[in-house]
Amino acid sequence: MTELGKQLNQLQQTIRERRSLRRFSARPVPDEMLDSILEAGRWAPSGLNNQPWRFALIRDPELRHRMAALTRYRKIIAGASVLIAVFLDNDSLYHREKDIQGIGACLQNMLLTAHSLDLGAVWLGEILKNAPAVGRLLELPPRYELMAVVAVGFPLDDREPDPVDRKPLAELIICRR
Amino acid sequence: MTELGKQLNQLQQTIRERRSLRRFSARPVPDEMLDSILEAGRWAPSGLNNQPWRFALIRDPELRHRMAALTRYRKIIAGASVLIAVFLDNDSLYHREKDIQGIGACLQNMLLTAHSLDLGAVWLGEILKNAPAVGRLLELPPRYELMAVVAVGFPLDDREPDPVDRKPLAELIICRR
Repeated sequence: MTELGKQLNQLQQTIRERRSLRRFSARPVPDEMLDSILEAGRWAPSGLNNQPWRFALIRDPELRHRMAALTRYRKIIAGASVLIAVFLDNDSLYHREKDIQGIGACLQNMLLTAHSLDLGAVWLGEILKNAPAVGRLLELPPRYELMAVVAVGFPLDDREPDPVDRKPLAELIICRR
Repeated sequence: MTELGKQLNQLQQTIRERRSLRRFSARPVPDEMLDSILEAGRWAPSGLNNQPWRFALIRDPELRHRMAALTRYRKIIAGASVLIAVFLDNDSLYHREKDIQGIGACLQNMLLTAHSLDLGAVWLGEILKNAPAVGRLLELPPRYELMAVVAVGFPLDDREPDPVDRKPLAELIICRR
């Protein structure tokens, strides 16, 4: 197999095997791993390269417990080693829909990287219902709009996560010309 | 270096080296490569796993030329081997902002995979100004909302694409607790 073929295979495998992991051990995620994850997010594409993503990093247990109270998924938030809250900087806005797509690309880069580091991670969106409260808790100005929280930690156990289904390609392709 | 370390390095490299490529050779992109790209898109995460992305694949030169007339970037659209128009299926909607983030994750999976296949690709958003006209041209019902067009082809030349800058992490981290 060529070097390029191997590279593709590993990317395909990473994309395909990545799963949401929700139970974490108490072992802290080292700063270097966290930096690798953020570095991957930083290199996402965006319209006119406006890079509208901003990150809040939360390790402090008391603050995590206060954030946990703002979502139904409190155990995940409270149990993670570190939270990466991802914000849209409305002062960097170029086109709302395109910027939010860019945030999604940034999140995916980070989730793939966490998986490659053998970390567990989950993309949490339900907490958006309390986005203004999260902003106040982190003492951020209103220009920063919460888009998602990524909870990261070492997996609690070796148990394989449940398999996840996807629609077949035939159902997703709505036009072929 | 461990197997995992190698895997991370390759992912980091793919994420970091991916560039928008806008000039393509006349060589057609084989169906198997196109399938690998779509397969990567299919495995993106989405809220409640609702998978709101849909794909229209356009190889037909006449149709590409009619689409080219709908954007300032007509040369890119006309010169690509294949276009992947990505739509949000509003009948599968769960939460608009989260669904659009999911579309962004799907796009990034496809762009990373195209790069790993040594293909050139570019994420085009400007054509969204004519989204309804694109839908009519492809004869799609209005439930499908255009999110982006990815133009794909073999790179025209070996010239290194221009380096792209990113903001330093220190500027992106707005809170560390």
